[in-house]
This record gives sequence, C-alpha cells and structure tokens, in this order.
Amino acid sequence: MRAPTEDLAAAAVPHMTPDEFRRHGSEVVEWIARYMERVEELPVLSRVAPGEVRAQLPPHPPEEGEPFDAVLADLDRIVVPGLTHWQSPGFFAYFPSNGSGPAILGELLSAGLGVQGMLWSTSPACTELETHVMDWLVEALGLPREFRSDGPGGGVIQDTASSAVLCAILAARERTSGGATNARGGDGTLTVYCSTQTHSSVEKGVAVAGIGVDNLREVEVDAAFAMRPAALAEAIAADRAAGKRPSCVVATVGSTSSNAIDPVAAIAEICAREGVWLHVDAAMSGTAALCPELRFIHAGVERADSYCFNPHKWMLTTFDCSAFWVRDRRPLLAALSILPEYLRNAASASGAVIDYRDWHIQLGRRFRALKLWMVLRWYGLAGLRAMVRSHVELAHRFAGWVERDADWETAAPVPLNLVCFRHRAGDEVNQRAMDAVNASGEAYLTHTRLDGKLTLRLCVGQARTEAHHVERVWELLRAAAAG
Amino acid sequence: MRAPTEDLAAAAVPHMTPDEFRRHGSEVVEWIARYMERVEELPVLSRVAPGEVRAQLPPHPPEEGEPFDAVLADLDRIVVPGLTHWQSPGFFAYFPSNGSGPAILGELLSAGLGVQGMLWSTSPACTELETHVMDWLVEALGLPREFRSDGPGGGVIQDTASSAVLCAILAARERTSGGATNARGGDGTLTVYCSTQTHSSVEKGVAVAGIGVDNLREVEVDAAFAMRPAALAEAIAADRAAGKRPSCVVATVGSTSSNAIDPVAAIAEICAREGVWLHVDAAMSGTAALCPELRFIHAGVERADSYCFNPHKWMLTTFDCSAFWVRDRRPLLAALSILPEYLRNAASASGAVIDYRDWHIQLGRRFRALKLWMVLRWYGLAGLRAMVRSHVELAHRFAGWVERDADWETAAPVPLNLVCFRHRAGDEVNQRAMDAVNASGEAYLTHTRLDGKLTLRLCVGQARTEAHHVERVWELLRAAAAG
Repeated sequence: MRAPTEDLAAAAVPHMTPDEFRRHGSEVVEWIARYMERVEELPVLSRVAPGEVRAQLPPHPPEEGEPFDAVLADLDRIVVPGLTHWQSPGFFAYFPSNGSGPAILGELLSAGLGVQGMLWSTSPACTELETHVMDWLVEALGLPREFRSDGPGGGVIQDTASSAVLCAILAARERTSGGATNARGGDGTLTVYCSTQTHSSVEKGVAVAGIGVDNLREVEVDAAFAMRPAALAEAIAADRAAGKRPSCVVATVGSTSSNAIDPVAAIAEICAREGVWLHVDAAMSGTAALCPELRFIHAGVERADSYCFNPHKWMLTTFDCSAFWVRDRRPLLAALSILPEYLRNAASASGAVIDYRDWHIQLGRRFRALKLWMVLRWYGLAGLRAMVRSHVELAHRFAGWVERDADWETAAPVPLNLVCFRHRAGDEVNQRAMDAVNASGEAYLTHTRLDGKLTLRLCVGQARTEAHHVERVWELLRAAAAG
Repeated sequence: MRAPTEDLAAAAVPHMTPDEFRRHGSEVVEWIARYMERVEELPVLSRVAPGEVRAQLPPHPPEEGEPFDAVLADLDRIVVPGLTHWQSPGFFAYFPSNGSGPAILGELLSAGLGVQGMLWSTSPACTELETHVMDWLVEALGLPREFRSDGPGGGVIQDTASSAVLCAILAARERTSGGATNARGGDGTLTVYCSTQTHSSVEKGVAVAGIGVDNLREVEVDAAFAMRPAALAEAIAADRAAGKRPSCVVATVGSTSSNAIDPVAAIAEICAREGVWLHVDAAMSGTAALCPELRFIHAGVERADSYCFNPHKWMLTTFDCSAFWVRDRRPLLAALSILPEYLRNAASASGAVIDYRDWHIQLGRRFRALKLWMVLRWYGLAGLRAMVRSHVELAHRFAGWVERDADWETAAPVPLNLVCFRHRAGDEVNQRAMDAVNASGEAYLTHTRLDGKLTLRLCVGQARTEAHHVERVWELLRAAAAG
C-alpha cells in the first residue's frame, strides 16, 4: 500500500509518458526523414541577419508546459531558417561533419539510455564497447598495434580534436617535466612545435596548458604546405641551446587550410632522437586510411606517441566523436587522474578495468561508442571505403576541371577530398565568386589564404554529395567570375 | 542529364535511406519507450564482470554491412546487461543524471540536423537559441542580471561542470596575470582556493591549466562541511605574504560528498576585497533555485564572477548540458580566442554576434540548446519546480526515518535532495548494508567519508522516483544491517 503523499512525486510532475514518447518520437523521426529528403532544397548558408532568430522567441521562459507540437512548429518557423545546412549535399565549406541514419539512431539510443561512462563501474558496457570499437578502428585504419588496448597504450573517444590535442600536450608536458608541471605549475621552459599550417587548436591547447603561446614554434612549410623537417630540427636545436625543454611536436595529416600532409616519418625520426612527444592530428583525413590505396597518408604514424582522427568529420558518425589513441597511457593518466573518495570502487581498485574519466578533461561522459558501433556495423568497412572513394574521385574530378581552365588554378596538391583553387584574376574576383555561390543557396564554400592569396576551398565529404552537385558549383563559380 | 560516373557517389555507398530511417527510427523509439517502462525491473547496478561484455563482441570489425535488426538484437543481448541504469527510479548513487522525453527528442533533432555551432555564421539559430535559453535561465533561477547576454557578461552551454570550472580558472588566470600566462606560460606563482569538500574537477582544472596542484589550497570546513571564510582569508593572506598571486576561489553550492553549501556571500566579500575571481559551482543543486523557497542557496551569487549548474544533472536535460555564465566575458574570451584565416567571416568581424568557440576548450559544438529549449517548454517552470519539490520532500522524509531510528544517524545537514547517513555500528555494517542494497538490484547507493567514517549517500533525483522506491531502500538497508 502506498503512502497517501505518494502523489507528490508521481502525479504533479508533467513527465512525457512512454506512450507520449512513442507518439512524439515518431513525429520527430518523420520530421528528420523529411529533412533528409528536403535538405537539398534549402539554402545551404542561412540568410538570417544577426538577432533575427532571437527576435522571434518570447522574452520570458514559459511558466506552464506547452504541447510538443508547438515546439515542432517553431522548429520549422524559427529555427530552420536560421540554420546553415551541414548535411546538405551542397555543403563544401570548412570540413565536413557528415552524419548518417545509424549514427543518429545511435545518438538517440545513447540519450534514451542516459548512462554515464566516467568509470567502468558506472556502466561497464559503455566502457567496454568503446574500448572494443577503438581496437576495431586500429585494425580498420592500419594503425600501429601499440595503440590497441591490450598493451600499454589504448584509445578513447574525445569530443573533438581540440580536446585530443590538448590531452596530447598535457601528456607530453607530464613526460617532459616528470610531473613537475602538474605539481608546481608551468615554468615557461617547455616548448611545442607545429607548422604554420597547423590547426588553431594547437595554439589554444598550448595556451590552456599554461605553456604559453610564445613557446609555440610554428615551423615553416614547403611548397606543398607541409612541415619542413630540417626547419623543425633547427627550431628544436635553437631552443635547447636557449635552455628550453622541447616537449611536443604536432604533425598534421591533412591540414585544415589545404589538406597538406606533414612528413610524419621524418618528423618521427627527429622526435625519437630528441625524446619529444609526437602527436599526429588526422582529424578529417584519417578516415581515408580505411582504403589501402590511401593508407600512404599514415606513413610514419607507427612511431607516433598519440594520434587522433574524427569519425564525426568524414566517417558518418554524427558529431561529437573524436578518436584518440596513445602508445603509452601512463603519462596521459598521470596528467589527468584524480581519485576522490566518492569515486572509489572495487573494480577500479582492482586495476582490471579502464576508467575513462582519467583519459580526458571531463568527468562525465555519454555512451558515444554506440553510434560508432552502429556506423561500423551498418556500413561495414566496405561501405565506408566506397564513400571515401566517391568523395576523393569527385574532388579529383573538380580539380581536373580547374586545371584544364586557363582562368583558374589549383593552389595546393589534392591528395584526398579537398581542392584549394582560385581564379587567376586575383582576390576580388575570387571573393565575388565565393559570395555569389554562397548567396545562391545551392552550395556553400569557404576560403583560406595560401601564398598570400585568397584561395577557395571545395571540401567533398557530405553523405549524399553526387557528381551533379560538384558540377553545379563549378558552373556557378565560372558564371560569377565571368559576371 | 547526369554524367555516366554519377553512380560512383550515389549507388555504391549503402546509406540508410529516409524510408529505412523511418522504419528503424520507429523501432528505436519503441525500444526506448519500452526501456522507460521496464527499466525499474532491471538490476540497477550492472552485474557483469570485467571483460564480460567485450568477450561477446566479434574480434574484428565487419567487412560488409549488417542489418539494423542485428544491432538491436545485440543491444538487448550484450549491452543492456552491462549497463548500470541511471534512469532507474532505484538509482540513488552519485548525483542524478536525469533525462526526459523532450530532452531525448531534442538530442535526436540535434543529431538529425547535424549542424555546427562553432561560429554564429556556421548556424545562427544554434547560437541564438542558446543565448536565448541561457538568458531565460538567468530569470528562471534568479541569477544576477549581469549574467545576461545584453551586457558585458553572458552564458554558454559547456559539456560538463569540469570544463566550466577549467574555463573559470583560465579566465581568472588571464585576469590575474594580465595575459602573461597565455603568452609566456605559467610561473608557479598563481594560487587557487577551494574547500576540502570541493569536487575533484578543481584539482584537475588547476593541473590542466598549468597552475600546479601544489598551488591549490583546500580550505578547511565547518561542522556542516562548508568552507570557513576566515580560513580562506588566512590562506590568501599567507600566500600574499609568500609572494604568491591569489587568482581564483571556487565556492560550491551543494558539494558532491554531502551537499554542503559554502557561504558564498562571505566568500564573495573576501574575493572582492582581494581582487580574486569567484567561481560558484552549483552543478547539481542550482536547479533547486527554480523554487523561490529554495533560492536561499544562491545567497551571494550576485557577486560571483562566474557560475555553473548542470541541467543534465537534476533538470531533466539529457547529458551533456552544463550551463555556465560569466559576469564579464572579456577575460574568458582573451584566454580562449584564436582566429585563423579559415574561420574569418563578415558576421564575426562585425562584432554583432557571439562566436561560442571562444567560450570553451573545443572548437566544434553541437546544437545542445535544442534539448534545453524543449525541456523548458514541455515542463514549463511550474513543472520543473514540482519535480524539485517532490525530490526534496522524499529526501527529507528519508532523513526523518533515519533520525527517528536509534541505530542510524544523519551525517550532514540535508538542505535539498541528498541524505548522508550511516548506521551507528561503524564502517563494516555500513559497507555490508550498502553492498546488500546494491546486490539486490532494486536500488543503487554510493558512499563517501565524513568525519573519517564511511557514510552512505541517498541522492533523490531520478525522474520517476516515487515514495515507495525510497521506502524500499530504507527497508533493504535496515534488513541488511540487522542481518
């Protein structure tokens, strides 16, 4: 018999019942299916002005609950016009953040289960499935077997490559300083190396870690925008001579700006000689290594101390899901382990389990391995390779058109799915061409600067981008440049 | 007319079609609805042994794709037995991480849309809806209006309170060092203050930021486990005398261990006098401030430099969603802003928009505001207050039973929804009682140590916890202690 005050908890809170969830869940699934079908018709780049979305929202939070349908109506009316559609086949900007049905449903299941994976014991399957799919990926991408979890190394899902590189810098800091930085704070002597083309997350990580951006060396690059190993060696030598302590080198496989591939093997040689941690950031391009014929991008990675690629960029695993491995987990754990009483438990004390809270900045973590598992099982490696090959083929086709047109030129090598190109008439024409394409609503491109010149980027990576989408961008660009 | 090689992209990749997504999406919605209905019948704490989940998974990734049904079958067979059920009404461990239908569907929509919110321009609605609901929460929780986005402050959704406190420490570091740490690295002179009861994330943040855990002062607490302001003032004075530079104090509203509430007003007075940044961590307990009669927990917060609470803990917003505000966003942005060429755009350059990438560690970010918006609209503030009141009432009821039983005692004040208690017979009996409850499968409790004694914690916060669940834990505990 229940207490008379039972109702307090049970009845007064307007929870969505399982049956209401069935109904509204079906509505949302249908909404997303329709979105998949119509996203191509929506302007890729949002056309709203600053403040336009907020101006349509009520100034105060609702006092009483509202029907779910009212929220869905506002989604169409207010939110969708304010979106830039990253899942559009006409999205060629930045890097892809491609998604897929199995990944979306994996995220839905993760949300529905609502478990925490901070410790093995807080949901063992959350940890073990993650360890397992990370081992699968070592095999699928031909990564060094030292990254597998059955030795001193191992893999973990981070949210983003920015967090992964920060963790690499922290592990390196720990190794170089022998734990002194964690204990007594930075002393301004550690140095970190990347190239002038390296992603801004390295500068941010160096700042966050208290190493100081003045101690980040941006090593010069060659004509293909790849790091010059000789320049790296010189920078390290100069720092040693000045009493600095070189700690970490970040090499990039597929730079953000131009998809440049640093010579990891030569860099690894220097790092090994100097006792410097080598982190390899392959955030977008790592996915290409699923294909044996593209695995050349990983030459030298077998000697890296840590490595990262983002399944949420090009491997159809809805954001966020960044895969990070270390050859030796001890410095990482030494940098990040904290053990308060309220988290102690027999499983952790046994040493027989992995507690992923010690592998990243956060404590709490959701069950992200589910979506990765679902993507790998739905597509199989063969299906994922087919996607990579189609994107690389489309990018190469586009590069061919550029190269065969006397008015245009490619601005960097095209090893994979990113084409950097420009009209020979200069910045003004390129800006005009890009603005016209983006205003058309049919496609969205972004830019970079290479050799001091405004350069357009076409990155092919959305799930449903086909040849005619790429052809259309080329038409729009030529028309705009001519106009 | 399409090119003959069109098929390369279109047909060879086994994408889940919109119709397949409709079908499998409905299956997953039904699966979750059934999970909601049956989660109470599952053992709350998983019973698997280390390695048991992995042993059931194939050693190699699949070469060819598999049907979705095969994955769902393995979810039931392999994954569910390996879960500890955080959404069970019998979950009283750690802190809650409660979820709800509208939040799950918000996460689903976010995954389906797959947009990036790193810049305003990469999806304006993602930024503007976030700014808007964060302003709503300022009003809903009675937070200082300086936290609103229409002045020099503002709010941002972080993943976890660990990341939020790290950002607070970085902003404080920036302000105290005048940018020198970001530029030249740490110099071991900055100090940070918390209490002996503060969450481990502060120690982790101090280590990550290169301040050094030796420069973290754990200030002693009073009999209610709240920070002693006089001891804080003494610690700061001693550090100043020793040439240190006090930078940041972290006060806690609702400590992890015992729900202790630091005297924020008195601490704020010291911080103002000393020019030290005050961060207030109300990760779980902040939600209580929805109720005017519980808003006493925020006394003094009006003078905080930054503040954080987690809607993903007690406010039905599926993990991850940590709400973080600053009174002055300039030091935060100075610590975290990076602007490479490929992210430049007219909107950012205009200064008229918020680019949230400069408000946290990561660059990429998903559309987390959607689920928060959906929770606020579905429940309304009245519905959320009803939930808070029911949990506080259940916790107080449990505390009353403990206090009226001569064999048991409460071990700390019970301001809200967490009861710390123990059997008077000592650690062995308490361990046995906890182990018995957890082995029963009906409920899950965790422990802490207070005054050197093993202390059990009952945290009431799951969406569907009712009086009879709390009564049952009390029965199980008494039976186990007696046995």
